[in-house]
Amino acid sequence: MHTNRKKGSAEIISIGDELLIGQVINSNASWMGEQLFLNGISLDRVTTIGDDEQQLHSAIDSALERVQFIFLTGGLGPTSDDITKPSLCNYFNVPLVFHQDAYDQVEALFARRGMQVSERNKQQAMLPANCTAVANNNGTAPGMWFETGDAIIVSMPGVPFEMKPMFSEQVIPLIKQKFTTSHYKFKTVMTTGVGESMLADRIKQWETSLPDNFKLAYLPQPGIVRLRVGGQSDDAASLMKQLNEQVTSLCSLIPEYVYGFDNQSLEEVVAKKLTEKGLTIATAESCTGGYISHLFTSIPGSSAYFKGSVVAYSNDIKTELLNVRKETLEQKGAVSEEVAKEMAEGLLGRFNTDFAISTTGIAGPDGGTAEKPVGTVWIGIATKTSCYAQRFQLGEQRDRNIRRSALTALNMLRLCLIS
Amino acid sequence: MHTNRKKGSAEIISIGDELLIGQVINSNASWMGEQLFLNGISLDRVTTIGDDEQQLHSAIDSALERVQFIFLTGGLGPTSDDITKPSLCNYFNVPLVFHQDAYDQVEALFARRGMQVSERNKQQAMLPANCTAVANNNGTAPGMWFETGDAIIVSMPGVPFEMKPMFSEQVIPLIKQKFTTSHYKFKTVMTTGVGESMLADRIKQWETSLPDNFKLAYLPQPGIVRLRVGGQSDDAASLMKQLNEQVTSLCSLIPEYVYGFDNQSLEEVVAKKLTEKGLTIATAESCTGGYISHLFTSIPGSSAYFKGSVVAYSNDIKTELLNVRKETLEQKGAVSEEVAKEMAEGLLGRFNTDFAISTTGIAGPDGGTAEKPVGTVWIGIATKTSCYAQRFQLGEQRDRNIRRSALTALNMLRLCLIS
Repeated sequence: MHTNRKKGSAEIISIGDELLIGQVINSNASWMGEQLFLNGISLDRVTTIGDDEQQLHSAIDSALERVQFIFLTGGLGPTSDDITKPSLCNYFNVPLVFHQDAYDQVEALFARRGMQVSERNKQQAMLPANCTAVANNNGTAPGMWFETGDAIIVSMPGVPFEMKPMFSEQVIPLIKQKFTTSHYKFKTVMTTGVGESMLADRIKQWETSLPDNFKLAYLPQPGIVRLRVGGQSDDAASLMKQLNEQVTSLCSLIPEYVYGFDNQSLEEVVAKKLTEKGLTIATAESCTGGYISHLFTSIPGSSAYFKGSVVAYSNDIKTELLNVRKETLEQKGAVSEEVAKEMAEGLLGRFNTDFAISTTGIAGPDGGTAEKPVGTVWIGIATKTSCYAQRFQLGEQRDRNIRRSALTALNMLRLCLIS
Repeated sequence: MHTNRKKGSAEIISIGDELLIGQVINSNASWMGEQLFLNGISLDRVTTIGDDEQQLHSAIDSALERVQFIFLTGGLGPTSDDITKPSLCNYFNVPLVFHQDAYDQVEALFARRGMQVSERNKQQAMLPANCTAVANNNGTAPGMWFETGDAIIVSMPGVPFEMKPMFSEQVIPLIKQKFTTSHYKFKTVMTTGVGESMLADRIKQWETSLPDNFKLAYLPQPGIVRLRVGGQSDDAASLMKQLNEQVTSLCSLIPEYVYGFDNQSLEEVVAKKLTEKGLTIATAESCTGGYISHLFTSIPGSSAYFKGSVVAYSNDIKTELLNVRKETLEQKGAVSEEVAKEMAEGLLGRFNTDFAISTTGIAGPDGGTAEKPVGTVWIGIATKTSCYAQRFQLGEQRDRNIRRSALTALNMLRLCLIS
């Protein structure tokens, strides 16, 4: 019995050469991490190793010193580079024996598919003598459940559509039945239009006064900072109440930056508002080059509120399709308040929508001047009764400038829609 | 000095609670794994841990027993949940000291953005006394390079767009300069318009006759299959010659599918061809919703050949801006050969470019019929002397259909440009 072993904690050991050379991203571990988290089991570590017996033995040894639940994925297929099963036999010093229940499962699966069980598949019912088979309803390799002292080791296939149902429908329920687990709840607050450091300054006092069972994490992405508030407790009901209170007081400190919750995208939030209000929109894009249009049209059903876009990369198109005046372009330059406004107004006239958004800026890397450096962006919004434009100074990288310009435009529109 | 330490081998330690609860997928580790592999450094293990000092110390301790190169990512931002820097000070038992070179970097970055360095950002130049700062050209947190015996530990930010250039432009070259690594050369052949299994059949004979020191990897992405041919040898010059010969004979087997090499994007290849020939283009997009336009405008300098786009999501816009005839829409439907051709022709007239591409299709998840199921796409190409359209049947997922439609359109254009 290991005295340092942390009760209710878990580690994942992901097995496969393909994970180490960048051929496959380890999305299994991330998905399992979320499932464990949502079930109140703390995942302490993920170890990714190649198809190597010694590495596997040493990874299991050290995991057993630390945690109670160990999950292996990978290395269970019918081909010769799959090493998990023989390695586990050697680890526990037990032989492979025929497991009737595992065989019945495979046979049932093949029967459903109208196929005969092959000799190679029969071999898959040969499992280490000390394990219990875990049914695989989506493939031929059964999972294996081992108990050693007060710890368990569960080995599962690496193929996601076999592993996921096995894990959530069988392994997790069995753990909850056999062990007591604590409650963890969290909520993610989505913010835009503000950097990590400025946010940190604004919410410092709230953050330091968080109760001990609560934790805040900053999760930045280009143009967006996610704030994850999470807490742990033995009492699920009071935890939920506490969490809601904390999130409410956090949001009240930064109302102008909070656009949504729990990984909602900004375009989804704006799309929902437009749909609710029965309003339509179109975009006139120069520096964003169609990216705002792409964001809207990535959402299923967007044709209800999104009418289309003119990507006016050349000045001719700005004049021809958006009615921007030649004099404005000559006197003020394409990247200017006036052109942003004329683009939005011209578009509104053409597309006859409730809103028109325009962008014109210098995405880079070239084209900057002392007065209008790379990252200068004007964003315009026109409605049937008003038109205005705002200047933003973004960064130096083209792809990030495009992304941030688009998010900034969406946020301006969001603020219009809730005002 | 650790006697078991494997020379030239690496481990990654990824730090961050968000990685363990499934909020963020550890794509950094996978990307770094590929970079290491391509540089002849073997990645033996990835360990993912939370923001926890003790876990970090134990992970470093055991990695140092096994390998020579240890890479940490994450936990370097300016906020309080970032633990890497203080943990490393405690690990090496050294104080934080002010690093002038790191400060100069941050100041230069802020100057370029026209901003003042804040007190919080100043703190980021405080680094463990025993490290060398690694410049971060895309953010405020410098990397840290530690040497301990014959091993190195490099700590980098977790934000991918900061970590990636730091790793490939600074860390890897420094390792190659300080340590001997074996010769590994590879070339990636980029293909489009063909699936993995059909490719495998076409090149089977070539693949089985590859010399023992060579390996082929299939790296599929939506709409694209990359074929990576790689070889290892002690003699760099003969290896390069051998590689070139193998790649030439591979390409000669599948000339119609090969569009480029070494992770070139299809839009880059098309853009280059347009530039060389001094030709211009515009797009009329329905189902791709501006995505083709976004791909072109993501490339620096695209205004030389890309004039703009009309995203005609509604039929009104197709009629109004692209001169698609109402009768055609009524008789043939928006997703039809005729509409695709009229869109391309109408656009060519409006934008006065050498080429016009159009897309019209059913991206899904709704809108499919028995005759035109989800995934049906018509793509048109018009020039001053010709106009034609082609039908494609793609899949069921909206995001993949948008991406594949765009790549298919770009490939049609590429074939026009080289014929």
